Amino acid sequence: MGEFDLIRRYFLPVAEQQGHPDLLLALGDDCAIQRVPADQDLVFSVDTQVEGVHFPRDYQPEYTAWRALAAAASDLAAMGATPVCFTLALTLPEANESWLEGFGRGLAQAASRFGLALAGGDTTRGPLTISIQVHGTVPKGQGLMRSGAKVNDLVAVSGTLGDAGAALDYLDVPEPDDDERALLERYHHPLPRLELGLALRGFASACIDISDGLRADLGHILERSGVGATLNTSLLPLSGPLTRCTGERAPRLALSSGDDYELCVTVSEERWASLPEGIKNQLTVIGRIDGGEGIRFDGGAVANSGPQGFDHFGSNS
Amino acid sequence: MGEFDLIRRYFLPVAEQQGHPDLLLALGDDCAIQRVPADQDLVFSVDTQVEGVHFPRDYQPEYTAWRALAAAASDLAAMGATPVCFTLALTLPEANESWLEGFGRGLAQAASRFGLALAGGDTTRGPLTISIQVHGTVPKGQGLMRSGAKVNDLVAVSGTLGDAGAALDYLDVPEPDDDERALLERYHHPLPRLELGLALRGFASACIDISDGLRADLGHILERSGVGATLNTSLLPLSGPLTRCTGERAPRLALSSGDDYELCVTVSEERWASLPEGIKNQLTVIGRIDGGEGIRFDGGAVANSGPQGFDHFGSNS
Repeated sequence: MGEFDLIRRYFLPVAEQQGHPDLLLALGDDCAIQRVPADQDLVFSVDTQVEGVHFPRDYQPEYTAWRALAAAASDLAAMGATPVCFTLALTLPEANESWLEGFGRGLAQAASRFGLALAGGDTTRGPLTISIQVHGTVPKGQGLMRSGAKVNDLVAVSGTLGDAGAALDYLDVPEPDDDERALLERYHHPLPRLELGLALRGFASACIDISDGLRADLGHILERSGVGATLNTSLLPLSGPLTRCTGERAPRLALSSGDDYELCVTVSEERWASLPEGIKNQLTVIGRIDGGEGIRFDGGAVANSGPQGFDHFGSNS
Repeated sequence: MGEFDLIRRYFLPVAEQQGHPDLLLALGDDCAIQRVPADQDLVFSVDTQVEGVHFPRDYQPEYTAWRALAAAASDLAAMGATPVCFTLALTLPEANESWLEGFGRGLAQAASRFGLALAGGDTTRGPLTISIQVHGTVPKGQGLMRSGAKVNDLVAVSGTLGDAGAALDYLDVPEPDDDERALLERYHHPLPRLELGLALRGFASACIDISDGLRADLGHILERSGVGATLNTSLLPLSGPLTRCTGERAPRLALSSGDDYELCVTVSEERWASLPEGIKNQLTVIGRIDGGEGIRFDGGAVANSGPQGFDHFGSNS
């Protein structure tokens, strides 16, 4: 099977199944063409997943595709952007048809769920590596950024944290129980908070998605905003499955493990009061921005234990 | 060295050295933000280069970076687009400082030469793989496409063909002579035809860049346009170094070897007559579009020999 047959068979159906009116030309030319509405800015982000680094070897291709698109789409959520389209740079060792079928299926499901049309890509031979760039739009000047956190803002996170990180222990369990299965589902099918990101435009002073762990990602907000934060670790939102499966390790996982793709936001008290209940319900306040440096913890117990979040080049130098 | 230090040290300088007024936010947030002027469309393309596939193992990092950005920028040239910015998804086995310095230097040189600002990226650990996505703009509806070739249009190519392919034989020559050095320069520092692409807007009926070889890439124009072509192989533009170094193999290299990043265009006779001399001088007419299927050659001698152009998955299935 040639490169062009491969694209025709496995990726053209993805493009045909999920389109977008702003995407004027997709697949099959030197470039794709996107029309950005006159009152909008383009926002875009690229995210790479490498076999054996970001997902296990011989991982199911459906999950591989879903996770790769979810991880990229999560950056759109963090900017409060409306999803439009994506490109796929897929490097794979061989044109294995059953793998490609599974990958195409997972990609189509995720594309449809997240509202992202396949615009183009490149397929090359080599070690399995997936780079996805997502495109979205925000009304001019309204993108959420990491740099706007102010002293006294509340720090809040969406959903529950630590579940996907805990799931790593159960990837090879032949018959996971209900709790283990709930954690695994968080790992296999992460759901970027696209609607929540949209709803937070005009409310959040800063926003980031939690891909490398709360501690590392909140750290980026603090650094870019030139502020510090104090967190109350007893407020960390922990799921039932997480606390039942990991016991005392749960808060540490919630702080430092990645792949949850929840949002961490800062909001002034005034704006928080004006947030619709339906949005507030999706968030848990866990602390407050202050004039210090870095993150302090009320208890102090968790502060100096465990890893600092995932850093691809941190371990060998 | 952590991932963030690495970006700060080697890639932030690239972004600071070459900016673009349309790029409102680059590096350091979840997404980059680009403002697309109201009368323009966004055009974009992603291109992946894998060590050992697209460039040799232990290839100089300056050249690696230049070639990766040139290959991607060449797709903007083929659309007649004005370059704006790019993202870099870099997967590398280790944070080798001297390699990263060289790569950053080559990237900065190419970014400045092609007018492309670094907007963002992702740096991950794994086998050396470089995916670059380039963004450009075209006035609404004026992008050059592969699909517009019409019967009787002239087929023309820019520059000379086959040089980069011929250079593969000399990559390990310790002291190349002048001709060999000229061919190697085409391989190490390809120059996408960005200005020519811009100049061809409104004249060319179809356009593609020659990355996989003339035969393969013209084939894409023919397929998308539903036409055929007859080429006069004696008209293929061959450089002095190519003919001196490769003799009788020269026309075959010009037809089938890749990496030249010249443009192949179709132009009606009427439009050809109205092309400014300065543009015509950069092009060589090599044949004509007809109502047949695929490519025919006047001589026939070259038609059935040699490879059909580069296909990443063509050799094992």
